[in-house]
Amino acid sequence: MTKNRNPLSAREILARNLKDMRGKLGLSQEALADMAGLHRTYVGSVERAERNISIDNIERLAKALNVHTSSLLME
Amino acid sequence: MTKNRNPLSAREILARNLKDMRGKLGLSQEALADMAGLHRTYVGSVERAERNISIDNIERLAKALNVHTSSLLME
Repeated sequence: MTKNRNPLSAREILARNLKDMRGKLGLSQEALADMAGLHRTYVGSVERAERNISIDNIERLAKALNVHTSSLLME
Repeated sequence: MTKNRNPLSAREILARNLKDMRGKLGLSQEALADMAGLHRTYVGSVERAERNISIDNIERLAKALNVHTSSLLME
């Protein structure tokens, strides 16, 4: 009878993927931030789904993780 | 001998997908903008890859087109 009334938002999906992919590569937030040309606290806030991140910055993170931009938004 | 040295940017992929999907649904920029709660000129600028659109607005457009957010960024 349960129904998923609250699917994950795009921000939440990105946050989870970012954390997972970063973790699998053994990178700290700071290391990923450096690779992407972003600030560590910014990466942290994206991983908490607090930021309305722009497409250019999603792309920077994807390039640093060596994945396609779209895969950061896949469930 | 040709090599693709300039893959499409995430903005350009989004622009193309948005235009294609909107066209297939027979929607004008204005109609899509209304459905997504955005302005027509804003949608136009996204379709020209001029805007550094945010994840929340990509999600609005995806919902209006009834596709997953990630599919707007797939090549």
